[in-house]
Amino acid sequence: MIKPQPLKGFRDFYPEEIAFRRWLFGKMRKVSHLFGYQEYDGPILEPVAIYEAKSGQELVKKQTFQLKDRGGRKLALRPELTPTLARMVAQKQFELPLPIRWFSIGPRFRYEAPQKGRAREFYQWDVDLVGLKTPEADAEIISIACQFFKELGLGPKEVIIKVNNRQLMDFKLSLIEIKKSQIPKVFKAIDKNELSLADLSEKQTKELKKILADRDFAVESEELTQTFSTLKDLGVADFVEFDPNIVRGLDYYTGTVFEARDRQGKFRAILGGGRYDNLVEIFSKTPLSGVGFAAGDMVIEELLKYFNKYPVVEPNPTLVLVTVFDESCFRESLKLTTMLRGQGVKTEIYPDSQTKLDKQLKYADKKGIPYAIILGPQELEKNLITLKDLKKRTQQTDSFKTILNKILNQVKEILV
Amino acid sequence: MIKPQPLKGFRDFYPEEIAFRRWLFGKMRKVSHLFGYQEYDGPILEPVAIYEAKSGQELVKKQTFQLKDRGGRKLALRPELTPTLARMVAQKQFELPLPIRWFSIGPRFRYEAPQKGRAREFYQWDVDLVGLKTPEADAEIISIACQFFKELGLGPKEVIIKVNNRQLMDFKLSLIEIKKSQIPKVFKAIDKNELSLADLSEKQTKELKKILADRDFAVESEELTQTFSTLKDLGVADFVEFDPNIVRGLDYYTGTVFEARDRQGKFRAILGGGRYDNLVEIFSKTPLSGVGFAAGDMVIEELLKYFNKYPVVEPNPTLVLVTVFDESCFRESLKLTTMLRGQGVKTEIYPDSQTKLDKQLKYADKKGIPYAIILGPQELEKNLITLKDLKKRTQQTDSFKTILNKILNQVKEILV
Repeated sequence: MIKPQPLKGFRDFYPEEIAFRRWLFGKMRKVSHLFGYQEYDGPILEPVAIYEAKSGQELVKKQTFQLKDRGGRKLALRPELTPTLARMVAQKQFELPLPIRWFSIGPRFRYEAPQKGRAREFYQWDVDLVGLKTPEADAEIISIACQFFKELGLGPKEVIIKVNNRQLMDFKLSLIEIKKSQIPKVFKAIDKNELSLADLSEKQTKELKKILADRDFAVESEELTQTFSTLKDLGVADFVEFDPNIVRGLDYYTGTVFEARDRQGKFRAILGGGRYDNLVEIFSKTPLSGVGFAAGDMVIEELLKYFNKYPVVEPNPTLVLVTVFDESCFRESLKLTTMLRGQGVKTEIYPDSQTKLDKQLKYADKKGIPYAIILGPQELEKNLITLKDLKKRTQQTDSFKTILNKILNQVKEILV
Repeated sequence: MIKPQPLKGFRDFYPEEIAFRRWLFGKMRKVSHLFGYQEYDGPILEPVAIYEAKSGQELVKKQTFQLKDRGGRKLALRPELTPTLARMVAQKQFELPLPIRWFSIGPRFRYEAPQKGRAREFYQWDVDLVGLKTPEADAEIISIACQFFKELGLGPKEVIIKVNNRQLMDFKLSLIEIKKSQIPKVFKAIDKNELSLADLSEKQTKELKKILADRDFAVESEELTQTFSTLKDLGVADFVEFDPNIVRGLDYYTGTVFEARDRQGKFRAILGGGRYDNLVEIFSKTPLSGVGFAAGDMVIEELLKYFNKYPVVEPNPTLVLVTVFDESCFRESLKLTTMLRGQGVKTEIYPDSQTKLDKQLKYADKKGIPYAIILGPQELEKNLITLKDLKKRTQQTDSFKTILNKILNQVKEILV
């Protein structure tokens, strides 16, 4: 016997879980479309080389699922989508109208220790604006994240987007005599909130701490100032604040970076992103700048539960179960089922004439099917149908037309 | 420089392709729901062991993408979903109300030579009815495939579902003295349409050919007879016919099997499936029978193109582009954009005040955005807005309220 559990860090999606997943993806799509973003997707398998070039060593060496193809080429289950985006944009760089506004929703893979809010296979929403290098473009991307939170019923009291700028940080670090070559290491240390990893002098560490505690120097960056002012015009100023501790872990960011968190700091980052100036450089000689973010599904799910915003979802589509009275009535039940489906009514039949009516109705009850139809010899003789309302525990026997109208009205009510 | 192409046999989905993919998945979902099927999904990575047990050696050894986890355990990118279905059903075998009606849509991976209608990463729709072992259940599954064809605009003149039964074939093969142990090999040979692979005597081969040419012996199987009669009651008799050449390649089928093809035989199989009696046996001691099919996305796409049924899809959601006249008007354009989005109008703004109006309108044209709004100093002074209809090449200057109503009416027209 093999144990029926999924691999560690991987998830099964039973109908209840898919119903939530589709609700969440629907929200992501709705917000993306509201801002005019088009959906795209790439392969789940990509050459490791496209991650090695840009994503950072930690991600590639420690956190990717890798395999070799028959030619010995190293492939990876995509740990993130930005390198794929870069590849796809580069492939049609001179055909696609700029700016490109794209989003994608799909699985990503990271070989990390699973914990609350983190799995090895997770779903991610990527949103990117490519081909414009303006603080207003940065603001648009951030405002999409804000609109998404609104759509989930989460306001600035629950969540906050912390914004910083790597160039501003470069400048501030240069003032305390941190060399350019040291900066990636210092960013890593800030990102991990462990300054000891930065290899700085005691004096520098002290001064760095001062910088990180200061919330007032965003004004020194014209870019950030402009981004914050645009966010105000876009009506989402309450959602954002400057925070020098946000530098993000990926290597490719070059300008404004941001991260969303719950206000109380109980959960991991909800989403993160920033500007990358050299998106396509490993594929193309013509540079292209972009800005984007990615949001995983798992922290959002935790958050919705915590704030009592988890939706009521309905995993079962069926409106009517047509029962089978006995073998002699089976054929008529089948025909009725076909007629109902022809009218667009989501209908199941119990495809076995040997199962007792009781058991069939129990099945409908367990699955939460609201109506059952009974078509026994009595009904057939008089050309009538019995409709059982399984929630109200009532029943009525009437003509097919009357019953159908009742059901169709029910469908309309559900749609409204 | 790295070449920007995807790996061989893998596909990029640009917005046009995603628009088709979502249209197709929408049809699959609609039909699944009409029959009361619930959506589920499993991980993309599974232990190789679950395929080794049931799917057949060819699939596992030659056609799976495999990798090892850090503990040395062999994992596979799922080549098909049935073993995952078995695992998930076994995990909750005594909780889930029977019969289980489930469907899933997602990526699968096969390490095969890419060709027309076949890639290494493809999308597949799986539909399964588990927990009932009746010919009527077989018929229900087949009728879902028929309903799907109708939904695509393909009728019995274009496509045919060929049905057979492995037990009936076992019986027929026993009559020509083929031993039970030889049968899997003979099925493989029939499936590949290369009888020489079956290692039979000349006499047996001759007799086998006779069996395969005979279209009249379905009546010898009570099960098949009952399935065909039910398909008639379900109104899809025109779509189905008996064909002894259909045995399907996977090892786990035990009863009725079927395969859909285009009538002219120009394309590969469109979908295939059958009954498997021992679905959960590698995970559970309590047996459970099921029936299901899987349909890949690629042959269907070819087919729709061939029969001129490929849909008109709209990859761009945007209704209005708010242009930016110059820097002094930027703020007002931003506010207007936010107001339009607040009314649910899918709106883009050109987030750069340095780009000339001409270029902005060209962008809208290229992307097929139907309306552009101009908010220049003249408009702002009089508190008016100019709306350009980019398709009709007309424009009108009016109050925000009037323009908004015009746009909202447009949204309604699109929805109707």
